[in-house]
Amino acid sequence: MHPKICSQSTCLNHPSYLNHSRPSPAALHHRRHTVTLIRCSSYQPPPKTLASSNPQPVLQSLKAFAPATVANLGPGFDFLGCAVDGLGDTVTVRVDPTVSPGTVAISSIDGIGSASKKLSCNPLWNCAGIAAIAVMRMIGVRSVGISLSLDKGLPLGSGLGSSAASAAAAAAGVNALFGMPLSEMDLVLAGLESEAKVSGHHADNIAPAIMGGFVLIRSYHPLDVMPLRFPSDRDLFFVLVSPEFEAPTKKMRAALPKQVGMKDHVANCSQAGTLVAAVLQGDARMLGAALSSDGIVEPTRMPLIPGMAAVKKAALEAGAFGCTISGAGPTAVAVTDDEKRGREIGERMAEAFWEEGKLKALASVRSLDRVGARVIGGNSS
Amino acid sequence: MHPKICSQSTCLNHPSYLNHSRPSPAALHHRRHTVTLIRCSSYQPPPKTLASSNPQPVLQSLKAFAPATVANLGPGFDFLGCAVDGLGDTVTVRVDPTVSPGTVAISSIDGIGSASKKLSCNPLWNCAGIAAIAVMRMIGVRSVGISLSLDKGLPLGSGLGSSAASAAAAAAGVNALFGMPLSEMDLVLAGLESEAKVSGHHADNIAPAIMGGFVLIRSYHPLDVMPLRFPSDRDLFFVLVSPEFEAPTKKMRAALPKQVGMKDHVANCSQAGTLVAAVLQGDARMLGAALSSDGIVEPTRMPLIPGMAAVKKAALEAGAFGCTISGAGPTAVAVTDDEKRGREIGERMAEAFWEEGKLKALASVRSLDRVGARVIGGNSS
Repeated sequence: MHPKICSQSTCLNHPSYLNHSRPSPAALHHRRHTVTLIRCSSYQPPPKTLASSNPQPVLQSLKAFAPATVANLGPGFDFLGCAVDGLGDTVTVRVDPTVSPGTVAISSIDGIGSASKKLSCNPLWNCAGIAAIAVMRMIGVRSVGISLSLDKGLPLGSGLGSSAASAAAAAAGVNALFGMPLSEMDLVLAGLESEAKVSGHHADNIAPAIMGGFVLIRSYHPLDVMPLRFPSDRDLFFVLVSPEFEAPTKKMRAALPKQVGMKDHVANCSQAGTLVAAVLQGDARMLGAALSSDGIVEPTRMPLIPGMAAVKKAALEAGAFGCTISGAGPTAVAVTDDEKRGREIGERMAEAFWEEGKLKALASVRSLDRVGARVIGGNSS
Repeated sequence: MHPKICSQSTCLNHPSYLNHSRPSPAALHHRRHTVTLIRCSSYQPPPKTLASSNPQPVLQSLKAFAPATVANLGPGFDFLGCAVDGLGDTVTVRVDPTVSPGTVAISSIDGIGSASKKLSCNPLWNCAGIAAIAVMRMIGVRSVGISLSLDKGLPLGSGLGSSAASAAAAAAGVNALFGMPLSEMDLVLAGLESEAKVSGHHADNIAPAIMGGFVLIRSYHPLDVMPLRFPSDRDLFFVLVSPEFEAPTKKMRAALPKQVGMKDHVANCSQAGTLVAAVLQGDARMLGAALSSDGIVEPTRMPLIPGMAAVKKAALEAGAFGCTISGAGPTAVAVTDDEKRGREIGERMAEAFWEEGKLKALASVRSLDRVGARVIGGNSS
């Protein structure tokens, strides 16, 4: 597929990038003139920025990759996620003399499915663009302009953290281009700006996409995230089965109950605690059982994904330790400690999607990605 | 104080001991004739019993101790608890030829405060008696009768698992008297019968009182509990401040909200996960912060304990990592990693109880009890 060619760029320091509502007419006017309006002196950067440093790039271009993520994990709804290997988005970040200093442009979007057609080339409305802008603002880049080329490895609306993967790769890429002045937590904050704009103010995809492994979101105000280390000597495989069906996050969010009964609350809290213990103790069986036990969110979302109930049943019957909806769906995620068994589980799940939901589905077996967003190639000339 | 002298004994195998409602007239009639009605052949014991073994005692008498417990731990409401050292109940268990074979009698109740006066000597309505009966039924004792002497080290209704400590000591004591045929999990089940009858069907006191350390209740049907090991090389101190005020569990339960908002649910789940991670990672600071963060139960119960809000504030100002209500209260529990600091925190908390709640309060600093219910003395003659 030919990449989508884009040409928009934008100023980094205007307040319109920092709130999550639609920009004001003044901001829109400003945006149309981004090439000439590079500095926005009226805007005071937040305290965490390194805006005074105006660093120089240490590379001319690089490729950054960030992995797919499975958020929610059943009773870990909205506060727990993990990264999975072998799937993700790649962003090429370049110092671009055709882009005005201090601004970001998206030069192309390529990749699988319909992702490249649906995504905006306006960096203000593109998840990679928003994250790149946030990182450049945080480190105070004013000396050069940056262009981004996105290579989407993840389909949109799949429940595998597609937007977070793009944001994470872009954030990590821009940070690396300038010698990595920002911490992982800063990058998560940058990515969260992006997530808040395109899919909701939740960090359970972006944090593991940046940090790798399992990550628990302790709080949002202030943002506080905690990596949970699954022991490296224990086997853990995720069976991911993605049907050809779009489950928009907003629709899946609208299905959530507003109120939760006290008994259900306690049961899910206990399973959330069990999930965390299972991760830290490297117990795949317990992790699967806990992930499979959500009595609050999964029951409301499952009927919205054709065949999902049968898919879960098929996974468990095939020996999975547990199964639930990945993120907001429609991908189903099952857990096992045996890769070969994982492939068999995946086949049964895909069959169930076809037989009960009339949906074609692709299955794959993945390990934990313990690294998160990283540079996979660079060029200093 | 002189011990309360009791003389009732009862048959172990009648169904009236197994449900939690008030006994039927037939059962009451049966109970009045327990000395002669030893066997209840109409009752089939549950599958887990070892009823056919009819074991002989390996000791003639022993003393068993079980520790105080802090249940709930903020967002760990109803599924997480831990045992604390240096406080608890002692039960002397004796083979008693004056007690009909296969039955249990409570011979005396002694101890602090008003506990000994308020507790029933009828083993069917006494937490230690119910647990002892359950253990004897499980192991199928028909050869001898048993008498229990209770020495209450914990006041009733204090929020420190007073009933669970008695039940745990009795259950462990009877089990030890017969050579320990039952597992810890069986003893937790026996203790849970007792808890269900006297204070509600929850295991977050009885499980740590039996097992020691931190225990997570994964499920009730079937009962599944998981010890969470706090690393032994990390310091952790509980500051327990008990005011002279009774907070009956039933009243405190009635104060609970029936429904929980989705946002509060997610926040508490995330803190429950953090609490578990803090325990397993031995992070007292994180444990305190998580324990202190309950946005659902603590806010509804705090106003029912005079001065509690000021006590929490005083604890935090004095350097505690966190503070909440222990169990259903009125004891306040704060967390620190320094024993001396713990004593200072306790003084400030007790002052706040007096100044804001007009309640006298006793403070003590305790470590984790990692052992749980145990035999502290035995006699084979």
